[in-house]
Amino acid sequence: MSIRVGILGYGNLGRGVEASLRQNKDMELTAVFTRRNPESLKIASADVPVYGIDALETMQDQIDVLILCGGSATDLPVQTPRYASMYNVVDSFDTHAKIPQHYAAVDAAAKQSGKIGIISCGWDPGMFSLNRLYANCVLPEGQDYTFWGKGVSQGHSDAVRRIEGVKDCRQYTIPVPEAQEAVRSGSNPELTTRDKHTRECFVVAEEGADIEKIREQIVTMPNYFADYNTTVHFITEEEMKRDHSGLPHGGSVIRTGVTGLNGEHKHVIEYSLKLDSNPEFTGSVIVACARAAYRMQKEGMSGCKTIFDIAPAYLSAQSGEELRAHLL
Amino acid sequence: MSIRVGILGYGNLGRGVEASLRQNKDMELTAVFTRRNPESLKIASADVPVYGIDALETMQDQIDVLILCGGSATDLPVQTPRYASMYNVVDSFDTHAKIPQHYAAVDAAAKQSGKIGIISCGWDPGMFSLNRLYANCVLPEGQDYTFWGKGVSQGHSDAVRRIEGVKDCRQYTIPVPEAQEAVRSGSNPELTTRDKHTRECFVVAEEGADIEKIREQIVTMPNYFADYNTTVHFITEEEMKRDHSGLPHGGSVIRTGVTGLNGEHKHVIEYSLKLDSNPEFTGSVIVACARAAYRMQKEGMSGCKTIFDIAPAYLSAQSGEELRAHLL
Repeated sequence: MSIRVGILGYGNLGRGVEASLRQNKDMELTAVFTRRNPESLKIASADVPVYGIDALETMQDQIDVLILCGGSATDLPVQTPRYASMYNVVDSFDTHAKIPQHYAAVDAAAKQSGKIGIISCGWDPGMFSLNRLYANCVLPEGQDYTFWGKGVSQGHSDAVRRIEGVKDCRQYTIPVPEAQEAVRSGSNPELTTRDKHTRECFVVAEEGADIEKIREQIVTMPNYFADYNTTVHFITEEEMKRDHSGLPHGGSVIRTGVTGLNGEHKHVIEYSLKLDSNPEFTGSVIVACARAAYRMQKEGMSGCKTIFDIAPAYLSAQSGEELRAHLL
Repeated sequence: MSIRVGILGYGNLGRGVEASLRQNKDMELTAVFTRRNPESLKIASADVPVYGIDALETMQDQIDVLILCGGSATDLPVQTPRYASMYNVVDSFDTHAKIPQHYAAVDAAAKQSGKIGIISCGWDPGMFSLNRLYANCVLPEGQDYTFWGKGVSQGHSDAVRRIEGVKDCRQYTIPVPEAQEAVRSGSNPELTTRDKHTRECFVVAEEGADIEKIREQIVTMPNYFADYNTTVHFITEEEMKRDHSGLPHGGSVIRTGVTGLNGEHKHVIEYSLKLDSNPEFTGSVIVACARAAYRMQKEGMSGCKTIFDIAPAYLSAQSGEELRAHLL
């Protein structure tokens, strides 16, 4: 019997999860839940029902794992503990500074219900975190570096869109190749924010807007752009649609370190991602974690887990024998 | 209290484990065990005793984890099950085809003793296997590629040393850059053995040996060289010592795959290692696994495990709270 999955929230991430479920034959999408009027929502899986969020109060016997596709700012801090009290749940909570308190809330709820709640799944936090952890365990004397991009940052794109006279924006975060090469060489460079990444904005301005004023407001914006070298390009709506409609992303986690009685041997561990679709890749990580949540709870575990707490074999549809024979 | 570790076998790998233990403050080297005359063996840690292998029969109350540093051909198939009946053990068994039977033997012994036996730790099998597994879980529709090198292959170096007239040899395995680039592009190339790697041999010949005959015997050697493009250089003993005394290695595991309702988005996941010392890096992975073995057994688990069965947090000296706060 398949693992029966529900999705709460049908934005980019919800659609990514939906697409990923079709690639995993041991799982099936049972229903999509929404805070909108369910009749107004048309989903890609025509045969799957859409319900209002209230239906979740009574569907415990039909859903094995509920995947929460809301935002980290206001949705998940409420939703994940709430639904962990009824279901195995998985989320992609990504506000790094608030992970400890989110963990505590989900842990309490999931321990009481006897369910599993896996938080912060995706690639950062997620696969990148995992690679930082493994690399730190193997090379305790060393240094970590994370580069993001080239890819679209939704937060930075939104920040530019809030500037007066801006109709649309797509912001790309770009790692500086020289900084990456210096890190890979094992020279342990000290790198400032500006050294590591540049930012590039493609902006559609409203007719008659003051282009130079917009540019100035972008490059001096505190937190978002002031600490970076930023390039701003003004383009037409047609160019935006034609050249910038995707959501690519990626990056790399690098740890350099030494071994030997006198630290005489250098090592470089690098994990890198090149993703055509950030939400679909994130959705794929979440779906693998949903499988793990289901199996861990079946074995009697409960409480909040992160990717650090999941024995890798739980993520795979293959048996231990198959994994040892083919992937070890 | 520190985790008390024993090492059986003091070759390159045993010395790598010894060096790694010094970098891990929660662990200590309690003793080295050898099949040789223990009085003839001088180890780097002057304050640590060396015992004959028979001492292992009665030291269960002094050793928390025994690390087995013998060879996969004849040592480990006997030693790992044998000592799993008395100790938590970790090995780096790397004969891929025989892993299932090795697993079964260690599992039976460790289940009976209530101990943990972790097999096949290192980087391949080990960290590379782990990255194959994670990438397969996240991108179920895709293709795996593994490249090794640039690095010294001990097996190939030994094979050349057995040729008449050869005094010494160091063989380097080198990935073909064009093949790597084709894989990274996501074009899913079909690659033959010859397409993926070249081999380079540095040979010290005995005086008066027939150089051309040696070259011919190397490049046509079945299994080892016949399927590769191989370059052979003849050098002096001094050059060998000066330029080829290290044991560097590395490589990369790449998975390319697609997501989306119609497989329309491509993704590339790459994990790569650049290692100055193969045995020291392998030793470092083993030491992290020894920590996991100790902690898993303390929690009541037993039996044979591989890196696939270890929740990553067990490998780290840090607490769950610390890991979530700093690495997630």
